[in-house]
Amino acid sequence: MINVAILGLGTVGSGVAEVIEQNQNEIKKALGDNLHVKYILDIRDIPGVVNDINIIVNDPDIKVICETMGGKEPAYTYTHLALERGISVCTSNKELVDAYGVELSAIAREHHCSYLFEASVGGGIPLLRTIREACGQEKISQIAGILNGTCNYILTNMKAGKDFATALKEAQEKGFAERNPAADVEGHDTARKIAILASLVSGKKFSYEQVECEGITNITPEDFAQAEAKGMSIKLLGVYNAENSSVIVAPFLVKNSHPLYNVNDVFNGVMLHGNMVDNLMFYGRGAGKLPTASAVVSDVIECAKNIGKNINNKFADLAPANVNKFPAKNPGEKFRTL
Amino acid sequence: MINVAILGLGTVGSGVAEVIEQNQNEIKKALGDNLHVKYILDIRDIPGVVNDINIIVNDPDIKVICETMGGKEPAYTYTHLALERGISVCTSNKELVDAYGVELSAIAREHHCSYLFEASVGGGIPLLRTIREACGQEKISQIAGILNGTCNYILTNMKAGKDFATALKEAQEKGFAERNPAADVEGHDTARKIAILASLVSGKKFSYEQVECEGITNITPEDFAQAEAKGMSIKLLGVYNAENSSVIVAPFLVKNSHPLYNVNDVFNGVMLHGNMVDNLMFYGRGAGKLPTASAVVSDVIECAKNIGKNINNKFADLAPANVNKFPAKNPGEKFRTL
Repeated sequence: MINVAILGLGTVGSGVAEVIEQNQNEIKKALGDNLHVKYILDIRDIPGVVNDINIIVNDPDIKVICETMGGKEPAYTYTHLALERGISVCTSNKELVDAYGVELSAIAREHHCSYLFEASVGGGIPLLRTIREACGQEKISQIAGILNGTCNYILTNMKAGKDFATALKEAQEKGFAERNPAADVEGHDTARKIAILASLVSGKKFSYEQVECEGITNITPEDFAQAEAKGMSIKLLGVYNAENSSVIVAPFLVKNSHPLYNVNDVFNGVMLHGNMVDNLMFYGRGAGKLPTASAVVSDVIECAKNIGKNINNKFADLAPANVNKFPAKNPGEKFRTL
Repeated sequence: MINVAILGLGTVGSGVAEVIEQNQNEIKKALGDNLHVKYILDIRDIPGVVNDINIIVNDPDIKVICETMGGKEPAYTYTHLALERGISVCTSNKELVDAYGVELSAIAREHHCSYLFEASVGGGIPLLRTIREACGQEKISQIAGILNGTCNYILTNMKAGKDFATALKEAQEKGFAERNPAADVEGHDTARKIAILASLVSGKKFSYEQVECEGITNITPEDFAQAEAKGMSIKLLGVYNAENSSVIVAPFLVKNSHPLYNVNDVFNGVMLHGNMVDNLMFYGRGAGKLPTASAVVSDVIECAKNIGKNINNKFADLAPANVNKFPAKNPGEKFRTL
């Protein structure tokens, strides 16, 4: 039995507990052992939940921690503490990976444990590990991804005729958008994710602040009508361009024959181009309790299979990237075309 | 430097040599070492090529073999020989995996080497490893895949208005279909691939002979017109249904909002449903020299990272599956709907 702890009993954290509970037979088959949630930490006073990280990191039974708190603190301090004790950490926290992923990965390596963050990009889509492990033979020239389910949901509804304000309100009512939707609709969330992807494939650290970023707030129903007349739709994409080392988040026109065209609602889709394999696309739920938790648990299984060893997440040695300006729009055009 | 041998200098075999040559920098980064093609074996008399498998399996330098011959013999005998000497084998040969995959995987395990076959399903798409390694926490209830590029190319052209005979002829002229196209257009190739996928996710061996199989030869332009009127297209799918343990290859109606709808031409797309992650789809080139070779080389890298160890491909212990009849079509309907 492998004992794990969950930090943060929010949506994703409670999902992790549910996946481990519901799918214990599948996990046993995959891992050759059971996973057991020994501790759940939350800053709130909830019965059965611990508040003190030291109880967890001082327990030699704990081999893997799921950090599903989000935000920089106390997630950074707790992750640091755990990795220094040789406890692997699996996270969905893209903000932390963007800001401290390199440092934390180096600490994990030094202490023979792992720092994995599959769930931080593309929710439930097995993306980072696939790129890391299965695409090593490829020279990847471009990544283009629909990486924010909230924006994609809003744009899917705008395509159906609603204006931005109405579509946003509906997304908020359904719980797909926050009350303060800025991080999503202004593209910052997508920027963090494309920065992580660009870092993984380029071997240089792209950070959130280096991403040119335009959100979806200026898109109008007329834009959709014009796009549709040309057989296209509008998608918010994060795009990494290897050739000139640039990253952008912006609305793009996407043709109706393109595989990303049918990535609708809260789904995510990521397309990459390799010099041998040509185009690959990965599609799935980019957010949501159980899909995101599933990705965290897949990392937990990998860490549990490799106790005492560091899984090379390709982040430990990344030097900062030199980032250039993304190729400009054509004059007179409101959107780039993918 | 890791020495490898390629068996069969056909399309895929020469592609493997090209990927290793062209992308040696990427491979070095991924593996931490170089790959070197020390031998190429072919039954034909080609300068620089060996004809005798014993030269290869008796060379202690050779750690990994790429079997890209296709067909059962001599591929089976050569693979058997290599694995017994502890040499890992990576293959694109779905016929061999279907017929002898369980036996060969057990031999690999016994001799502390690996038998991997990523390229046998979905060409360049990183599919088998992703399902094996990243979806272990999921209970997978269905797989539905466009798994044959030739049929998909023909159907894409039929959708554009051509009849079957014309679309087939064009596919043959472009080299996408064989002179004898039966294995593709009657669905046998897809059947081998869905049998491999069903085996991987079910933990039971589904074999080609157990797959209900209907090809694309009876599809008419009128069928496409009717489908289009309903906002649908017709795709040849291999479908595995976990609930009643059934597998089928047949033309299905697919809605124009479905992610598989935009899988066109020679591309493949595989959708699976997990109880936690919901729908996932993987898309890429299902055939072709370099994409298929890329998948073989990804397996070679994995084997080269694990010399002296067996990578558990999940096939070594598979007992034969009990296969039931796939749910029937609705009365009066020519096609099922996905």
